[in-house]
Amino acid sequence: MSPPTPLDVNLVGVTDTSAVPIPDPLTVNGVPAWREKMAKIPTGVAAASNSDMFKSPICYTKPKAKQFEHRFSLESKSRKASTLKTAARYLKNPGLISLGGGLPSSEYFPFEHLDIKVPTAPGFSPEATRKSGTVLHAGKHDIQEGISTYDLEIALNYGQATGAAPLLRFVTEHTEIIHSPPYSDWQCTLTPGSTYAWDTALRLFCERGDYILMEEYTFASAAETAFPLGIKVVGIPMDEQGLLPDRMDEILSNWDVDARGARKPHVLYTIPTGQNPTGATQSAERRHAVYEVAQKHDLIIIEDEPYYFLQMQPYTSGDATPEFIKSLVPSFLSMDTDGRVVRLESFSKVISPGSRVGWIVASEQIIERFVRNFEVSSQNPSGIAQLALFKLLDEHWGHSGYLDWLINLRMSYTARRDSLVHACEKHLPREIVHWEAPAAGMFNWMEIDWHKHPGVAAGKTRAAIEEDIFLSAVNGGVLLSRGSWFKPDHDTVEEKMFFRATFAAASSEKIDEAISRFAEALRTQFGL
Amino acid sequence: MSPPTPLDVNLVGVTDTSAVPIPDPLTVNGVPAWREKMAKIPTGVAAASNSDMFKSPICYTKPKAKQFEHRFSLESKSRKASTLKTAARYLKNPGLISLGGGLPSSEYFPFEHLDIKVPTAPGFSPEATRKSGTVLHAGKHDIQEGISTYDLEIALNYGQATGAAPLLRFVTEHTEIIHSPPYSDWQCTLTPGSTYAWDTALRLFCERGDYILMEEYTFASAAETAFPLGIKVVGIPMDEQGLLPDRMDEILSNWDVDARGARKPHVLYTIPTGQNPTGATQSAERRHAVYEVAQKHDLIIIEDEPYYFLQMQPYTSGDATPEFIKSLVPSFLSMDTDGRVVRLESFSKVISPGSRVGWIVASEQIIERFVRNFEVSSQNPSGIAQLALFKLLDEHWGHSGYLDWLINLRMSYTARRDSLVHACEKHLPREIVHWEAPAAGMFNWMEIDWHKHPGVAAGKTRAAIEEDIFLSAVNGGVLLSRGSWFKPDHDTVEEKMFFRATFAAASSEKIDEAISRFAEALRTQFGL
Repeated sequence: MSPPTPLDVNLVGVTDTSAVPIPDPLTVNGVPAWREKMAKIPTGVAAASNSDMFKSPICYTKPKAKQFEHRFSLESKSRKASTLKTAARYLKNPGLISLGGGLPSSEYFPFEHLDIKVPTAPGFSPEATRKSGTVLHAGKHDIQEGISTYDLEIALNYGQATGAAPLLRFVTEHTEIIHSPPYSDWQCTLTPGSTYAWDTALRLFCERGDYILMEEYTFASAAETAFPLGIKVVGIPMDEQGLLPDRMDEILSNWDVDARGARKPHVLYTIPTGQNPTGATQSAERRHAVYEVAQKHDLIIIEDEPYYFLQMQPYTSGDATPEFIKSLVPSFLSMDTDGRVVRLESFSKVISPGSRVGWIVASEQIIERFVRNFEVSSQNPSGIAQLALFKLLDEHWGHSGYLDWLINLRMSYTARRDSLVHACEKHLPREIVHWEAPAAGMFNWMEIDWHKHPGVAAGKTRAAIEEDIFLSAVNGGVLLSRGSWFKPDHDTVEEKMFFRATFAAASSEKIDEAISRFAEALRTQFGL
Repeated sequence: MSPPTPLDVNLVGVTDTSAVPIPDPLTVNGVPAWREKMAKIPTGVAAASNSDMFKSPICYTKPKAKQFEHRFSLESKSRKASTLKTAARYLKNPGLISLGGGLPSSEYFPFEHLDIKVPTAPGFSPEATRKSGTVLHAGKHDIQEGISTYDLEIALNYGQATGAAPLLRFVTEHTEIIHSPPYSDWQCTLTPGSTYAWDTALRLFCERGDYILMEEYTFASAAETAFPLGIKVVGIPMDEQGLLPDRMDEILSNWDVDARGARKPHVLYTIPTGQNPTGATQSAERRHAVYEVAQKHDLIIIEDEPYYFLQMQPYTSGDATPEFIKSLVPSFLSMDTDGRVVRLESFSKVISPGSRVGWIVASEQIIERFVRNFEVSSQNPSGIAQLALFKLLDEHWGHSGYLDWLINLRMSYTARRDSLVHACEKHLPREIVHWEAPAAGMFNWMEIDWHKHPGVAAGKTRAAIEEDIFLSAVNGGVLLSRGSWFKPDHDTVEEKMFFRATFAAASSEKIDEAISRFAEALRTQFGL
């Protein structure tokens, strides 16, 4: 582990928790001092750890989460602790020689060291990284040599489903600093990506035949994860702030078990920030209203938040970290007094999707069920990826550097968003296209007034016209996503028409050219 | 990609497949020439690939696999292709600008390069690696710069469920060289570990309420993956060569649907080589007999083979590669004329468990169902781990170097096995302990004649005596695994008593000490 940075004592939590009734909140600058007070981080092969080892005292001043066993599936209720992992408790006996587990010896792992070159704040660009980046070194036996708390010997062996302690610590602290959940017994577990976490959540909370609640337009793959499990979707109508809580209340209050052939839904899947595909971001007020409806109907909220840090507020110069955190719209987790929120966290949009490392935050009871599942399926995210992320996030950047990276990233995405919106303003025929500039995420959602399409008079369906416009755009050299791809509710008829454009990948020149091609396709299609 | 090694033309497949009725089998030395003939490997972001791109012409001289849709679960039959991934086919249009997918731009991936230090054959030991190992370098834009076929830009972005083409190519070639499946339309897909592949296999082939077949003692976690899904296990009696095909036939032929309350099992899970926990290895004859019973009852065989290369035959000096391959007991895959075998492959015991990268080999029809599931759950193994493995296995070692590594590894495990067996011979009271030296794997399985335990006269149960011996050993400073932990069939009563010792991790001195402690515990327990 790199040495703690100089302490800012005023920002540090507490020195003697028994003497202080309300400890200070954990802050970025308070982390090193708090770490010094804690017990040593577990560093052995597949060493067990959990977020309670890393949460600061203020967490324990809060009430416990409610119990949600009545929401667990038969599959989840049936899960028991792993027999072989349970036997590992004897390993603590001093002097014991284990011929018990089937862990290979690290002398047969053919990796002696791993080096990664990464940006040094504030030089975050690829050019700056090439010139002035830092090479981080992970050796095979850094722990033994006292150089680090995580090394190749550990990363390359079997691990715990919760992830390696040093990275679990980082995400636990990050969660506390950003969200400060309002109940005490929250936990984190790493996952091999949040798509997998969502698949597991469905199996944990739902039975075949259930309905779940989703935004009326949502990430197509999230719905496609549910369908083969025999789970159907009720789409909740949305406005420019995303899902409408009163409409959700209405759906649930009037749920007709016989007509639907299914019990009332008890799981809401939502992407609250920079929603995919609509780009909508729920305001704090909207989230509170949604949470109240969730309480009224005893819902589990699955909060899928890959775009949370791609919120596009104006840049604050100087030390922007505390301002940045304050500027973020509060998460469902941060208002979850009951412990009914399962927050799916992802590094995919802010570090890289290919690492396949994410994490979940939820109550201890719920996280325990996830972990029991992971132990006999995914086991844990790749140790090589965990090690690379730990070296970058914890040892190199620390919380402060990571937040600087996120601030830098959202400035880049703001510029990209602006390019796309400018291109739309410049090229698109406003008489048939409408959009709201997104406040977060990667997507612009464009509504097409398809009733003005000449095909309507000739009896063409909405779907056929959407297909025509899509293919006309493709033939003109631009690929957009069709709105109908994102409609998960198969019980209702689609009345509107949308196209989704992302500003995540193409350059601003290409974005301008692409939108101009789309405009041309629309003009041709609509005879403008 | 590193330059092809000099060609041994006699070993190369064919130059013009139409003119040669029976092409030569693919060999280690034939790979570079065969690669040169093939179309260029796909290198784009999330580029699609499949094993057909990499299989040599001889594969297509064989008949196709049978169809097994009648064995698929309702969940698996319901899976459709991902909507968003299907749209990717338009990306091939020249000049098209995509604003369709939500792939982040690689300029926001904060890794500029990744270096790993690895062994240079034949210096495989950690000492040799430290002194004379090779540092392999992966840059962000190696593909663009013409240096490699896989780089950080690709590895860090979203990928295909089948894995990155360059690593999929390696495992496809490896599969063909080692197993040469006897039907033409076999495929491989990478997986994030074989535990996850097994979890997926259960969901792919089974319904709640089903029974599956397993060895009467088996890997505890494999059974614990099945139980929460509502799947029960019939244990098949074993001898020192593992499961007994005639007993399996008997169980299936006499299956009583009413008495069992379940349809006849149609999935066999087996660990054919160095079985966990018994260490048993099925001979070629045994495997053929098992396969025949599988054909008779139309079973799917899940062949879980982490220990396949830990077969302990005598070392052959000189260029041992062809001899090594010939010396291996044939896999079920290699005799699978029907395409009813699903082979789960793992790097955990031969490279490192922490990479969480494995692969599956099966017929195209079955692999396609796995891939549809992976697309909406695990997505793909970590790109960082795939890149590290690709650099090591493909660019650095190549097939020949990897086989040398495996030969070296099995010599090490042979020495470890010998240490354990010698310690058993030296210390254990033969009047109450019996074992067969294992021919593969990591485990020695010791049967205890518990009827000679003084507790029997006092009315102690088998289970209580097992517990007494286990705790007595733990108190004496040695941890072994209890046989009962590995019994997955809960419908039958356990009559024998076993303990499992692994020789994978401890040094030979520690192994000797541990077994001497176990001997002491047994003597005390049995009053010897």
